[in-house]
Amino acid sequence: MIHSYDPRTGEPAGAPFAATTDGEVDAVVLAARAAAPAWRAAERATVLDAVATALEESVEELWRTADAETALGEVRLRGEVARAAGQFRLFAQVLRDGGHVEAVIDHATAEPPMPDLRRMNHPLPGVVGVFAASNFPFAFSVAGGDTASALAAGCPVVVKAHDGHPRTSELSQKIIQSALPDPALLGLVRGLDAGGRLVRHPAVAAVGFTGSIPGGKAVQALIGERPDPIPFYGELGSVNPVVVLPSAGRDGLARGFAASLTLGVGQFCTNPGLLFVPDDVELLTSLSEAVAAAVGGPMLTERIRDGFLHGLARLGKLTSLAEGRAGEGAFAVTPQVFATDLATFAEGLPGLAEECFGPAAVVVTYGDPAELPAVLDRLEGSLTATIHATDPGEAGEVAEVLLRKAGRLIWNGWPTGVAVRWAMHHGGPWPASTAAAHTSVGAAAIRRWLVPTAYQDWPAELLPPELREDNPLGVPRRVDGVLT
Amino acid sequence: MIHSYDPRTGEPAGAPFAATTDGEVDAVVLAARAAAPAWRAAERATVLDAVATALEESVEELWRTADAETALGEVRLRGEVARAAGQFRLFAQVLRDGGHVEAVIDHATAEPPMPDLRRMNHPLPGVVGVFAASNFPFAFSVAGGDTASALAAGCPVVVKAHDGHPRTSELSQKIIQSALPDPALLGLVRGLDAGGRLVRHPAVAAVGFTGSIPGGKAVQALIGERPDPIPFYGELGSVNPVVVLPSAGRDGLARGFAASLTLGVGQFCTNPGLLFVPDDVELLTSLSEAVAAAVGGPMLTERIRDGFLHGLARLGKLTSLAEGRAGEGAFAVTPQVFATDLATFAEGLPGLAEECFGPAAVVVTYGDPAELPAVLDRLEGSLTATIHATDPGEAGEVAEVLLRKAGRLIWNGWPTGVAVRWAMHHGGPWPASTAAAHTSVGAAAIRRWLVPTAYQDWPAELLPPELREDNPLGVPRRVDGVLT
Repeated sequence: MIHSYDPRTGEPAGAPFAATTDGEVDAVVLAARAAAPAWRAAERATVLDAVATALEESVEELWRTADAETALGEVRLRGEVARAAGQFRLFAQVLRDGGHVEAVIDHATAEPPMPDLRRMNHPLPGVVGVFAASNFPFAFSVAGGDTASALAAGCPVVVKAHDGHPRTSELSQKIIQSALPDPALLGLVRGLDAGGRLVRHPAVAAVGFTGSIPGGKAVQALIGERPDPIPFYGELGSVNPVVVLPSAGRDGLARGFAASLTLGVGQFCTNPGLLFVPDDVELLTSLSEAVAAAVGGPMLTERIRDGFLHGLARLGKLTSLAEGRAGEGAFAVTPQVFATDLATFAEGLPGLAEECFGPAAVVVTYGDPAELPAVLDRLEGSLTATIHATDPGEAGEVAEVLLRKAGRLIWNGWPTGVAVRWAMHHGGPWPASTAAAHTSVGAAAIRRWLVPTAYQDWPAELLPPELREDNPLGVPRRVDGVLT
Repeated sequence: MIHSYDPRTGEPAGAPFAATTDGEVDAVVLAARAAAPAWRAAERATVLDAVATALEESVEELWRTADAETALGEVRLRGEVARAAGQFRLFAQVLRDGGHVEAVIDHATAEPPMPDLRRMNHPLPGVVGVFAASNFPFAFSVAGGDTASALAAGCPVVVKAHDGHPRTSELSQKIIQSALPDPALLGLVRGLDAGGRLVRHPAVAAVGFTGSIPGGKAVQALIGERPDPIPFYGELGSVNPVVVLPSAGRDGLARGFAASLTLGVGQFCTNPGLLFVPDDVELLTSLSEAVAAAVGGPMLTERIRDGFLHGLARLGKLTSLAEGRAGEGAFAVTPQVFATDLATFAEGLPGLAEECFGPAAVVVTYGDPAELPAVLDRLEGSLTATIHATDPGEAGEVAEVLLRKAGRLIWNGWPTGVAVRWAMHHGGPWPASTAAAHTSVGAAAIRRWLVPTAYQDWPAELLPPELREDNPLGVPRRVDGVLT
């Protein structure tokens, strides 16, 4: 049985849910597969907009249900429902634009003799398996970006719900299903074993995952057991280094850091876990004061809280720079920031740069910024890397190194907050993600679920409309090498 | 030691080459990595054109060297050098076009508050390892599409040469190096152990491979031993089903099949290994006659010849439809075509649809074309699938199934011959490739070696030119959701 708990009280939140049996997993996956042909032919943009509206109309019930399981609060949860709805709307836009099919036409030529060749993307021929995240009950869970992008691509989805919010998962599924032409297009399974069976199911053509590095490795190992190496898009850990260069403006810097660190009780994959700062007493004092003024809160589950405490113990050999105010609630934790110097940090790598999921960070002081690049070059991949500076000329070499270390580079900002836009890239080198070329947020996320087909001398009657000579859908195309 | 043999005589072709030692592999890879920063900043399009010219200017020496090791003959080998040169020129065009960086700009907005976000692709931060193929000493080897596309992307390359043509590999490397700004950008290693060390080397960021399914699985297993799951782009086996529907024109059909089957002694990944035809005595007779008139020839190596004979033994339980004329040479084989009916074929799956690399095929006769889709649906993935018909209306359901089974669909043609163009897709569902979303031929092949970076509120001075407001390179971009 899967029990969810109220993180504020530590008491069970409602009745438990049964884990999905093997037979039930198979039935859900096969029903999803059977729904695929009609979905590929459906007006998917219209349906995605309807899903968005359905989520928005149920925001009251959604946030209350999620709050009882996550203690994330009304403001955050209303915002997250809006964000989840916004993702469905973005993918409706993507479909109407049509650029995602990447239509390319090369007409036949006589000299050299070349056939007529036309290429476009189609949905993966199978079901997409999605592992929901703990920390976003909406935006990276049943109603999340993996679901939205896979449905947009034309693939049915089966989500392995996160045990931390089973009731929210169920409600999200029902609301989305109410707007889908066939409820089988969005299946839900529960429990670790069911997740394993989902990954191994022959009808599953790709897996999306948001979670921990060990969790991601476990899924990768399951995929290794399959006869066919299906793609695995895992978004795993990230420490998100922030480098404050000497020229950086100090105004609001400490408050900005503390706010980003403690947002959502630090439960973000974009949480700033490493802050490199000049060895400057005034700056360190302001950081210390800002963190001391920050308040902790309950983490999502007892296990996540325990993981955070374990991480703190690992960092405990460092000097404490500041401790925030204790949060309230059964699973509550207190923000913690440690300090060390660049040489000690470098000696302690890679351990000192391991993610500690929650409101904890290491502040690394440096004397000479010229020593930064060599140390930054030893960090593992992250989703983001940030530079604070007023003089771009000062940042050149640091930026050069961080470009190889992170999927998103931020200037004078903070890594939390991932805009759902065309240009977003939410990914990065291992272990930030298992597939650095792909993003789990933004318009390009749809590409994970698409595969190209080339049609050679194919009759016009059998070509998809996107590749017909008259381009009835008006999709962007490259024709004989030229974008049109 | 690695000996190459003249397939016509079975005698060693020149002195043997030493296998690359561990220390040498490391040195080659590290030198390649050190050459990367300057290469990323170089005028790569100009260099790629110079490589193409250098290959063309050495065609005489290249074809003669390759012919002594492969017996593929002057016409084919001259053509293949031209094709290899053409691939470098295509990628020069791709770089000048700039669409491959997929530049996207979303300007900041006040409501909702959104940062300025700009995204583009960069080369993978590391060396690309390439495993050369046996069957294309130029176009899928040292001078092949993986090398050309990875260099175009901005990545140094280290090729594991195929043991079947070591002298051609060395010559190709030297000619290409003569046109590169730094010879370390194209390293070469020899021998199985060296290939393994290459795949496991920390500086290697991705692997391209053209070869057999067992070979591909071995490389995949080596990647599984790495701490980081680098991308593996393997192009493996393929049976390339061809379906002749009742309405198909019979003129030239049998000759076309025999020619495609025996081209290059059947040593193509696009070789038509399965032919579905109406149960029609006249058609079967013409197929039999065309195959009987075809001549065999020496295969590339003794091992490949033995593999072909092994495959023939597996198919030997079927009726022989026709045998071609024996080829001449030490490693020579004879074209062989077997026949069976649809029901027997279906019973013998998956074994009867396994690739037999070389000039062998199974002709499957059917009575009712309505029975085809269910059987075709049981085939594994292929690089290509072909339909012969005059009435497109007859092909609908068969085309629907084949769309899920192959990366390229061909109408009234033959699968051998892969045009190097913008619209080509040379890939397909497992086991045709390890990454169905990617192609190893055509303009899109460059994407395998690229990863995106998003820049948030990044200063103009530090942005790559492709993302600057004034677009100095004139690359295609999507700005605020609109393609420009």
